[in-house]
Amino acid sequence: MSENTVLVGAKPVMNYVLACITLFHGGAKEINIKARGKAISRAIDVEEVVRRRFLPDVKVKRVGIGTDQVAPNEEGSSLTNVSTIDITLVR
Amino acid sequence: MSENTVLVGAKPVMNYVLACITLFHGGAKEINIKARGKAISRAIDVEEVVRRRFLPDVKVKRVGIGTDQVAPNEEGSSLTNVSTIDITLVR
Repeated sequence: MSENTVLVGAKPVMNYVLACITLFHGGAKEINIKARGKAISRAIDVEEVVRRRFLPDVKVKRVGIGTDQVAPNEEGSSLTNVSTIDITLVR
Repeated sequence: MSENTVLVGAKPVMNYVLACITLFHGGAKEINIKARGKAISRAIDVEEVVRRRFLPDVKVKRVGIGTDQVAPNEEGSSLTNVSTIDITLVR
């Protein structure tokens, strides 16, 4: 994962918004917002807040969707699939 | 909303997968999978299951993300924003 990636999890949306703004203010021209499973809708919330409220010059370059295979916690059970999103923002 | 749109909500993923397969088997060349808020991750689950398990010749043409304004239930409160996804599949 590159240094210009914000991995969205279960924290409040504004935490990740601040991370994105910090990267752009630090000179990044392109950042990636990534999430898996239930955090996917929060990743889109982050992108929308960054662009609409804080950085209107930022554009969505690409939205990738896919599947990751995840090793389960218990031994003996098989791999499970989880959906992923990868939003590329450019300034 | 066109007749070739599957709106993903809170039902099980396979309900929406079946709706997509039915549209393609009925001759549709292009369908849209749409969702809002917490159902967004389920919409990606639907797309992944349709393509990986059932219709490998189907491709993702476009993924659009955005914001809808929603009127709240109680009177007097203001509009709230909800994130959206619109996945276009082509065969």
